[in-house]
Amino acid sequence: MLAEIIAIGDELITGQRLDTNTKWLSERLLECGSTVAFHTTVGDDLANNIDVFRIAIQRADIIVCTGGLGPTADDLTREVIAKAAGVPLVLDEDSLRHIENLYTSRGRKMPERNRLQAEFPAGASPIPNEHGTAPGIAMLVKRTGGGNCQLYALPGVPAELKPMWASSIAPEIIASQSEPRITVHRRLKCFGAGESHLEEMLPDLIARGRDPVVGITVSDATITLRATTSGPNEAACLEKIEPTLQIIRDSLGTLVYGQEDDELEHAVLRLLKEHQQTLSVAEWATGGLLSERLELADEEDHFVGGAVIRSLKQASSSLGVAAVLEPNSPQLAEALAEAIRLQTGADYGLAVSAFPPDRNAPEAHVFAAVASAEGTRKTRFACSSHPAIVRARTAKQAMNTLRLTLLGKVK
Amino acid sequence: MLAEIIAIGDELITGQRLDTNTKWLSERLLECGSTVAFHTTVGDDLANNIDVFRIAIQRADIIVCTGGLGPTADDLTREVIAKAAGVPLVLDEDSLRHIENLYTSRGRKMPERNRLQAEFPAGASPIPNEHGTAPGIAMLVKRTGGGNCQLYALPGVPAELKPMWASSIAPEIIASQSEPRITVHRRLKCFGAGESHLEEMLPDLIARGRDPVVGITVSDATITLRATTSGPNEAACLEKIEPTLQIIRDSLGTLVYGQEDDELEHAVLRLLKEHQQTLSVAEWATGGLLSERLELADEEDHFVGGAVIRSLKQASSSLGVAAVLEPNSPQLAEALAEAIRLQTGADYGLAVSAFPPDRNAPEAHVFAAVASAEGTRKTRFACSSHPAIVRARTAKQAMNTLRLTLLGKVK
Repeated sequence: MLAEIIAIGDELITGQRLDTNTKWLSERLLECGSTVAFHTTVGDDLANNIDVFRIAIQRADIIVCTGGLGPTADDLTREVIAKAAGVPLVLDEDSLRHIENLYTSRGRKMPERNRLQAEFPAGASPIPNEHGTAPGIAMLVKRTGGGNCQLYALPGVPAELKPMWASSIAPEIIASQSEPRITVHRRLKCFGAGESHLEEMLPDLIARGRDPVVGITVSDATITLRATTSGPNEAACLEKIEPTLQIIRDSLGTLVYGQEDDELEHAVLRLLKEHQQTLSVAEWATGGLLSERLELADEEDHFVGGAVIRSLKQASSSLGVAAVLEPNSPQLAEALAEAIRLQTGADYGLAVSAFPPDRNAPEAHVFAAVASAEGTRKTRFACSSHPAIVRARTAKQAMNTLRLTLLGKVK
Repeated sequence: MLAEIIAIGDELITGQRLDTNTKWLSERLLECGSTVAFHTTVGDDLANNIDVFRIAIQRADIIVCTGGLGPTADDLTREVIAKAAGVPLVLDEDSLRHIENLYTSRGRKMPERNRLQAEFPAGASPIPNEHGTAPGIAMLVKRTGGGNCQLYALPGVPAELKPMWASSIAPEIIASQSEPRITVHRRLKCFGAGESHLEEMLPDLIARGRDPVVGITVSDATITLRATTSGPNEAACLEKIEPTLQIIRDSLGTLVYGQEDDELEHAVLRLLKEHQQTLSVAEWATGGLLSERLELADEEDHFVGGAVIRSLKQASSSLGVAAVLEPNSPQLAEALAEAIRLQTGADYGLAVSAFPPDRNAPEAHVFAAVASAEGTRKTRFACSSHPAIVRARTAKQAMNTLRLTLLGKVK
């Protein structure tokens, strides 16, 4: 099954926005056993869109397109599919009611032009969209030379597109294969070592032609090891993958903090749950980032809250920390960790000091501290990097310090 | 001049790597006065490549392709261009010497297979590559129906491609125009209305064929209006764009909060700077997001810090707020805003209540409050949306409430 992905929008064709949907859909199509052969991007131009869809219908078995389903004048996808397939647009009453209800639930009246979003090429079915007004479109289009092309049109908003893929499209594509063969990945997430150091610890695992293939990628100091294999079903694939994952775990020990989409905050919250303990945070350099990550990941109230510190005056008025300390010092990190722990009654207090005035100096450091009933641990991290990177990396390093403390690895 | 960008490589078509070259090249082509009409991506497959190039040669005046110029068996671009243009490959002695010299200068002998990189479709010229072994290819290809297509092939490595573009291709494209024309964009950022409501407020502005063209995009409830035009130089373009921007500002009033890359926090911080005032934040539903955004954008310490609230117990212990209030209530938002303002000594306190237990219920609301010396303003927002969206949207809505208060628009 050859697949083509079509991304639609002036913001993409002009380079104003980076297209991440097509990358995501490519990975998902491969998992469903399809071969992605073409990606095409086109602006909000009727003639170019029709040209692109006519070519794709002839050369691909599956088309997944994104964008152009909004209610405005430059949203052309409904019209383009109808024209490329040679059918008229017809109103779907169920979809119209869904859109009207969505507006009603937000206490607003549906604007007249949103009615367009309930129009479909004749013969197409709507793909339900739980998170937005634009339903998707599923349609089997006949090729001029015989045969069919299965077309799926999705909105360009990732938070709408992804659940629509998972609940409606992926199951349909897998079920349509005569001899299903799927590709499965499993990822282990690592933190605390550089890429080449980590690769040296893995004997011959990252070699071409190996099955499962192991790939390594780095993002903001988090290293992901991905094992990939194919087979008739998920169980067969996982049986092949598991021994490889075990070699990685044995070789890397506590450098592995989680799997799949885990971030360090998930690892920290899992450990807090195991110990039935709670955490609060006082952060200066990370400016709310630690709290934000923990709050988003916390499902059982192990993160009890925190303070975002911006000056010694505020550290004093909010947490009663002595205003005579240096903002970028291990003593301040320690005092903040103890103060937030006492104020909130949490088992652990995690704190990050201010950045040094020149965070790009070769020897620049930022300090973190973990306070608990057993006392306070302090660590320091280099912070000579790009400002946008160093804040995220500092948050990760602070959480990793807490993780290793919870594992009993930092004394 | 219609342009098509072709990106080549298995790592792109499988979604293993995000294609940033095409976005970059789109922006550069527009600046040179070309209209980018198509992006195409294809893997390292001969037949699919030839198909893609044949289509592009017929529909585009300029083709820029990236990738497939390396020395390995899966680098097919030289062969593909020769086949699509119907000419043989011939060795270019100068390019061969350049590659041999590059190896010699690194103290190594050129592997035999690198000889391939000195082969060019007959009639093509090499594009010098200062930073790698693969020269680019420039070639005027005749269309079957008459006319020509100017094709440029570049390596996929950004550090090689970008200088090659700047030194060889951009000057050639600009010089090839009889009357040089560049394209310029300006963006206005809006918040506080839906896309279709906003479009209804703009009389005939988002119409096809208008000059400047006005495009509308939405990201997390922030609406961007982009005016685009072409002209002989930047000053001429801006003169054409400014009246359109003025119509938008006049039509939308305070819905326009900024321009270009502005977010709501930039608008809020600009107003605080104008008034020489300070802000602190107490946030429950947004879990640190408000603080994080403000801290990242704040260059002059108008944001003085805040508290991340996760329970009534903590609201009481950290801010002295009465623990008898409802977590999701306007009263709590008001109490938090007043308490954080007093504790930090800021001019304004901004607070967000907890989400309701079922934030997906049709009538679910979250509350924000702004406290100042003049009293406290409360607002409420619908929050029935995807969790990942609703948090970001709630943060924006809270900042917008503060912005309107600072503008004197909320009483």
